[in-house]
Amino acid sequence: MTARLTQVPPGAQCFVGEEARLRRGIEETVVSVFEGWDYEEIIPPLFDYAEVFAGEALASKTYSFVARDGSLLALRPDFTSLLAKIAAGRLRERAAPLRLYYSGEVVRYEPVRAGRQSELYQMGLEHLGGDARAADAEAVAIAAECLERLGARGFVLALGHVGVFGGLVDAAGLAPERVEALRERVESKDPAGVRQVLQGAGVSSALAEAFERLTTLGGGLEALPQAAQVFSCCAGAGAALAELRAVADALGAAGLGRHLAVDLGEVRGLDYYTGLVFRVFAPDLGFEVGSGGRYDTLVARFGRPLPAVGFMLGLDRVALLLERQGRLAAIPRPAVEAIAATQLGAGLKDAVARRVRGARVRFGSGGDR
Amino acid sequence: MTARLTQVPPGAQCFVGEEARLRRGIEETVVSVFEGWDYEEIIPPLFDYAEVFAGEALASKTYSFVARDGSLLALRPDFTSLLAKIAAGRLRERAAPLRLYYSGEVVRYEPVRAGRQSELYQMGLEHLGGDARAADAEAVAIAAECLERLGARGFVLALGHVGVFGGLVDAAGLAPERVEALRERVESKDPAGVRQVLQGAGVSSALAEAFERLTTLGGGLEALPQAAQVFSCCAGAGAALAELRAVADALGAAGLGRHLAVDLGEVRGLDYYTGLVFRVFAPDLGFEVGSGGRYDTLVARFGRPLPAVGFMLGLDRVALLLERQGRLAAIPRPAVEAIAATQLGAGLKDAVARRVRGARVRFGSGGDR
Repeated sequence: MTARLTQVPPGAQCFVGEEARLRRGIEETVVSVFEGWDYEEIIPPLFDYAEVFAGEALASKTYSFVARDGSLLALRPDFTSLLAKIAAGRLRERAAPLRLYYSGEVVRYEPVRAGRQSELYQMGLEHLGGDARAADAEAVAIAAECLERLGARGFVLALGHVGVFGGLVDAAGLAPERVEALRERVESKDPAGVRQVLQGAGVSSALAEAFERLTTLGGGLEALPQAAQVFSCCAGAGAALAELRAVADALGAAGLGRHLAVDLGEVRGLDYYTGLVFRVFAPDLGFEVGSGGRYDTLVARFGRPLPAVGFMLGLDRVALLLERQGRLAAIPRPAVEAIAATQLGAGLKDAVARRVRGARVRFGSGGDR
Repeated sequence: MTARLTQVPPGAQCFVGEEARLRRGIEETVVSVFEGWDYEEIIPPLFDYAEVFAGEALASKTYSFVARDGSLLALRPDFTSLLAKIAAGRLRERAAPLRLYYSGEVVRYEPVRAGRQSELYQMGLEHLGGDARAADAEAVAIAAECLERLGARGFVLALGHVGVFGGLVDAAGLAPERVEALRERVESKDPAGVRQVLQGAGVSSALAEAFERLTTLGGGLEALPQAAQVFSCCAGAGAALAELRAVADALGAAGLGRHLAVDLGEVRGLDYYTGLVFRVFAPDLGFEVGSGGRYDTLVARFGRPLPAVGFMLGLDRVALLLERQGRLAAIPRPAVEAIAATQLGAGLKDAVARRVRGARVRFGSGGDR
């Protein structure tokens, strides 16, 4: 017998018994919230043509394989591309807005280390078309409701907008290499580094200050009026900030202000996002439990120009958060009724009769559970 | 834009809205039955080392791919091997019996034609260890309860035992080629063909008649006493038949007799089965909606000798059956309450407040659903 018959491949996941029940409970809660906001479930394929997932940061993390007909297939590394394809294809006759959700596994090549798995279970939604600001605000509100109903405490929805950094970059007319260096320094919240990258770039002092302030502006919603002043130097960044404020104001009016924060310096790995972006954090975890944002150009790749916003929660991370917060209470269920099988027919008859009455039964020999 | 950005790969599945809700409803019902018989859920990996799935009839249907570390991985083509590996590995300290269930997708290369997909959603259970006859009877009773609770009508659980054909083969001392030819003729219910294959094989007339009767013996449970006479010529076949009768009698005593049939001629593709086998049929479908059986040697491959029985239901086929029988009633849910987003903040506040009260809301613009 080789070791491969007993070992699990790196990154593959396996859950047993109570772990599986808790995951099922989390998934049911999140799905009920999605359904409660009138989203429809999509069960997309586990795999599709590899080019469906191309052009994204995820392409290098995709598991691909060759089909019998020679075409290159890939296990889905995320859901958003698949839902965009379905909205543009199978649902092309359906008028916008489309409210779609999914719940299932994605597969990625990931370096195997704490918190990283090749298999990830994601639950998320996509709102395609419709009133953009209302959809943005709704997406954030739904993410908040999911965490509330799961019993998570102290979670924070950190809002940003890729158009703030993007608007400044456009106004400054920077070369691509400098943009990447700048993105990296902003991401590291390093104002001195930002200044250094901009040296000799011929950028106005107002723009240079605005770039620098990306690393420090943030925290509560009170940062937004101040940011409006700082970014008034640049029409693009100002417009992005106005969008962000409209969404934040609506969320505040809906009573969600205590969960909101602003982070204008989160500019990495935002791939296909074009507007609002947000990440869900919690005090007991060093990484986000979910994220989302607006992507107004992705669906057009599949033949239907349709602006959209979406987000997803990672089931493993949500479960870890709830566990750390002591919120993963065992789901109550009826005590098991043991029925002997010494008389096979009479015992089975008894078990079947109890099942008809709704009992949980254990027929025959037990285990050491 | 290439066609691959709009077409779905052959055999890949996609479900939307009501279809997805109905599938979710079926899955929840089946899972509640499994839980009701005290089975524990296992969420196994989507993929494992290819050799885990080797040695089965499924090996040629397996999608495999190479991991970054060079090992050959395969998408799971079934669950039974994975659960056997988990029972022998991760759960090796757990005393038998183990009652485990699963619910998820498997992936297979299949010729694309009616009723055949590359992605199949299966719900099933495995009972490892314990009292074998009680576990056999329980597995069949649980399959029946699943279909009852789903509202399926007229379904039939066709029972067989691989030891009947196997016992006759052992007693006859046939060469492997002849066994395969015989299996094929028995499967085709062709008594003349069976006689022809046995010509010149030096088989006693009692054995030859027993082989021939495999093609005709079947139907209701009343076939079993008759079969006992026919197979009294062969100890192995007789013992197998006695096992089958014990299980059938228990199921009859439990009130399930109306759903039972006997089919001793079902001997194809039974791979790892070693004892009782059964298939679930319904009058409105030309293929089975589920199947199962006893496999007493598979788990030992993974290092833990543990006899076992299990079965699975195919979600797609169950859904098709219920649809054809007009039993797929839409799952009731509250009417949606539409809330305008003309006043973004006030509207969102209203929507959130209604969600707190448990309403189903549609915020902002609607669709043409």
